Amino acid sequence: MAASAPSRPRRIGEFDFLDAVQRLVEGSGAIARLGRGVAVGIGDDCAVVAGAPRTLLTTDCQIEGVHFRRGWLTARELGVRAFRVAVSDIAAMGGRPEYVLLSLEIPVASKRSPFDSEAAKAIVRGLAREASRCGASLVGGNVSAARDLGVNVTVVGQARRRAVLRSGARVGDLLFVTGSFGGAGAALRVLERARSGAALIAAAVSSTTLAYRRPPLRVELGAQLAEAGLVHAMIDVSDGLIQDLGHLCERSKVTIRLDHRAVPLHPSARRAAADLDLGGAVNPRVSSALTGGEDYELAFTAAKRSRADIERVAARLGCRVTMVGNVAEGAAHVVDSSGRTLAALGGGFDHLRW
Amino acid sequence: MAASAPSRPRRIGEFDFLDAVQRLVEGSGAIARLGRGVAVGIGDDCAVVAGAPRTLLTTDCQIEGVHFRRGWLTARELGVRAFRVAVSDIAAMGGRPEYVLLSLEIPVASKRSPFDSEAAKAIVRGLAREASRCGASLVGGNVSAARDLGVNVTVVGQARRRAVLRSGARVGDLLFVTGSFGGAGAALRVLERARSGAALIAAAVSSTTLAYRRPPLRVELGAQLAEAGLVHAMIDVSDGLIQDLGHLCERSKVTIRLDHRAVPLHPSARRAAADLDLGGAVNPRVSSALTGGEDYELAFTAAKRSRADIERVAARLGCRVTMVGNVAEGAAHVVDSSGRTLAALGGGFDHLRW
Repeated sequence: MAASAPSRPRRIGEFDFLDAVQRLVEGSGAIARLGRGVAVGIGDDCAVVAGAPRTLLTTDCQIEGVHFRRGWLTARELGVRAFRVAVSDIAAMGGRPEYVLLSLEIPVASKRSPFDSEAAKAIVRGLAREASRCGASLVGGNVSAARDLGVNVTVVGQARRRAVLRSGARVGDLLFVTGSFGGAGAALRVLERARSGAALIAAAVSSTTLAYRRPPLRVELGAQLAEAGLVHAMIDVSDGLIQDLGHLCERSKVTIRLDHRAVPLHPSARRAAADLDLGGAVNPRVSSALTGGEDYELAFTAAKRSRADIERVAARLGCRVTMVGNVAEGAAHVVDSSGRTLAALGGGFDHLRW
Repeated sequence: MAASAPSRPRRIGEFDFLDAVQRLVEGSGAIARLGRGVAVGIGDDCAVVAGAPRTLLTTDCQIEGVHFRRGWLTARELGVRAFRVAVSDIAAMGGRPEYVLLSLEIPVASKRSPFDSEAAKAIVRGLAREASRCGASLVGGNVSAARDLGVNVTVVGQARRRAVLRSGARVGDLLFVTGSFGGAGAALRVLERARSGAALIAAAVSSTTLAYRRPPLRVELGAQLAEAGLVHAMIDVSDGLIQDLGHLCERSKVTIRLDHRAVPLHPSARRAAADLDLGGAVNPRVSSALTGGEDYELAFTAAKRSRADIERVAARLGCRVTMVGNVAEGAAHVVDSSGRTLAALGGGFDHLRW
């Protein structure tokens, strides 16, 4: 549960609301009792609760009309996506998922909105198999009627060594990211533009939309880095790289220098950016790759001496890891290599801002 | 997650679907690995996972237009109700809640559907305080935009001694229920009939709708009975007493003889029933109290010798407990005291059947 606030005018944006939620919950005394089993409450990727190894708790959802439209991906892909999005928070703590709960909201079948039990089963099958591939079990859930299809996923995980928090970044650390950015954003633009049935079907099976339909799964990398004690702070990038790095800064009370030119762009985002070369100015297509959200990659900081070990782990897992900046003393800001605040590039994706 | 099937024609009813889900999940191998920490998967009130004491996992939701309408209860009452409904499954296993996750779906404010952050905060405040009263902490969650307001609650609990399953009923046991039945059903009829604004406001603050707005909280009773080893099988009654007793029968492979005349009716349901005396025939108002759903009382079986101890625990907690039948050898049926199948009275509430 994120809880920082972007520095721009707000309606009831998610971060604003989460801020309020955090204050409320702290005020209610429910979370203050850290001695009674809550090590980390609202404000990091997962809650961390009692026990050794540490138990991680997180919940996420995919709602029709907000996170997806039915033509954008198959029911089975929706199940896979819902799990990968939810488990991303477990990965960001360096944990491994163990148990999954599914709360399905299913539109009652009607002429206007046909939905059959086969589609529902395909969602469950996709989710259960994907969970199983990660060593986790779908252990329960709930089914309700609703106007819109909704897939709520709760994941219980374990951090074998310790949970990697957002607050652990140290001055002098290097900043790394997994994979590439902007692919899901580019995919969403393709899907949103496809108005005719045929265009939508073409888009929904195209490799250009795969980054959205099948977000990366970084559980094994996150867990191995954490278990080897190689990382100081980690976050999953769901709301745009710059915004999520902002959360790291804020929790760690450091400045992050991001060499944004070093951030790997997804091939779809790179093609879009290449069409628009603005010389010295910030290319808005590059900017959108860093702020667009839905990437589900990991960003983490680590000591310089850990770099070779990190690259060895990543190579063994076939996962791209790129050094894209470092951690400096200073106010909680994300700046570029020349010190300009990157928040000016624009905020990330806020689920309550349509 | 319930998984039995009523014996009547079905569309994609919840039980049908859950049946299919259970087969799917078992087939996927995700749940078969009971040795890897899953003691009880889909098919009981909660999942039971590794550790001593046993960890319980459950999730439930309240969706606008399905479980509530906005005028029916205040935002704060919705938060309390969402927690009480979800924690009812923990109570039914004899557990105590520890951690709560909230996934809120919030309609974006519009003229047609005004919704402000104060209402969202009131939901969270209601839920967090209610959790806190039960010794549990709201540790995290998620906020998403949606067309309809939705409150998804996941509860992690512990069974200090052992989890009380649906499958534990023994031939010769007595059958008990907590509280009274039909109150929420009667409240829903009042709320649904209130069409004008003034009538709705009157209904929504009336004591006749309190059973719906504020379901009973049976955590302490369920936990004390379980911790004292007094109960063999337990279930929470969310979908109608007769239907939920059907789940107990099915899992325990026994016949339950329910003396339906002994089941305490809520005053609102009793008033409605008194208007309609049919002599020897089954009074449909009584029937609806036993099949109407939303009661969130507990039903449990126990050895005859435990009766005095059970009544002592209940008296100490100020909770009404009534002996309403017994457990017999035979097919998995709920029958009345003269042996007639009570399923004929009608099924319970199925969330996918509007």
